[in-house]
Amino acid sequence: MTPYQRFLLALGLIFSLIFSGVAGYIVLEGWSFSDSLYMTFVTISTVGFGEVNPLSTGGRYFTIFLILVSLLVIGYIITTLMSFLFEGQLLHAMRER
Amino acid sequence: MTPYQRFLLALGLIFSLIFSGVAGYIVLEGWSFSDSLYMTFVTISTVGFGEVNPLSTGGRYFTIFLILVSLLVIGYIITTLMSFLFEGQLLHAMRER
Amino acid sequence: MTPYQRFLLALGLIFSLIFSGVAGYIVLEGWSFSDSLYMTFVTISTVGFGEVNPLSTGGRYFTIFLILVSLLVIGYIITTLMSFLFEGQLLHAMRER
Amino acid sequence: MTPYQRFLLALGLIFSLIFSGVAGYIVLEGWSFSDSLYMTFVTISTVGFGEVNPLSTGGRYFTIFLILVSLLVIGYIITTLMSFLFEGQLLHAMRER
Ligand SMILES: [K+]
Ligand SMILES: [K+]
Repeated sequence: MTPYQRFLLALGLIFSLIFSGVAGYIVLEGWSFSDSLYMTFVTISTVGFGEVNPLSTGGRYFTIFLILVSLLVIGYIITTLMSFLFEGQLLHAMRER
Repeated sequence: MTPYQRFLLALGLIFSLIFSGVAGYIVLEGWSFSDSLYMTFVTISTVGFGEVNPLSTGGRYFTIFLILVSLLVIGYIITTLMSFLFEGQLLHAMRER
Repeated sequence: MTPYQRFLLALGLIFSLIFSGVAGYIVLEGWSFSDSLYMTFVTISTVGFGEVNPLSTGGRYFTIFLILVSLLVIGYIITTLMSFLFEGQLLHAMRER
Repeated sequence: MTPYQRFLLALGLIFSLIFSGVAGYIVLEGWSFSDSLYMTFVTISTVGFGEVNPLSTGGRYFTIFLILVSLLVIGYIITTLMSFLFEGQLLHAMRER
């Protein structure tokens, strides 16, 4: 994949994560759009102020799933960023010599 | 940009983030300076003890915005730090040979 | 260790951490499996919504221990990921010349 | 500084941070040792379950200070870890050729 494609993939992953979170809380818990969006951002950013409303057992397992996928996406983004950085620095260092 | 300019930019971004957070909570929610400063630090550090006072819907959207910008600034700072490290290490390794 | 062995070690560390967390809260606090699993994920991901139920002093010390080990495991995983990245990039750069 | 000295410095910084946090909550808020230790770990790990007891305005400013210093120490440790990694990898790559 080219850097541009990897950047698009990272953006796509983040939007899918936000969309899944919002849809999950609306469908599983019957929360409003505003509550579900806020809960999703508070969860995937790991800020974690607290559950917006009490969660059912199903909602808790969904939240565990959302946390797990968020950590994988964060890991992918950090790895991609670092890999751009190395490539750039190495190419720069090679060209300098 | 020189490393010094990038360091100044990182510092400037952090101060703008803190200032925006404090101003936002004072204007949108009518909170005290102390409450707004504490909420801003608890949010942008991702410590997230909990909302200092209940948030209006507008305040929630502002908090989502603050979280998003914080993550971008954290990403910029990590990338800048790593890029200094690579440059230093690579230059050192080249000079050694 | 080969990259594959280090990957298996990272997976093993994460599963041990989750298992220890769940077992700890069930044994020390008498919580349900669901409560203990949710508390463990909320803690080791650093999301930290809040304690699922009030903690005894023993449960607090166990939570401090769980946080400490989580940070060590996160550090190990980041270091391993970065070390894969460097090796790959360096080998690639060397082969290109 | 040698790697061993930097490792000792990192350990020293973490212990100073924990000691300062515990001492701060005992002196400023009159909390028990157990409450102060738990609050310190929950804060510096950014888990952030919530304040163990309500904080005075002084206690809030102390918590802001503790968060700030924690982020600096985390940044120092990540930078040190990465710098060990680069050095090791670069030296290894140079020796291979
Ligand atoms: K948190
Ligand atoms: K919290």
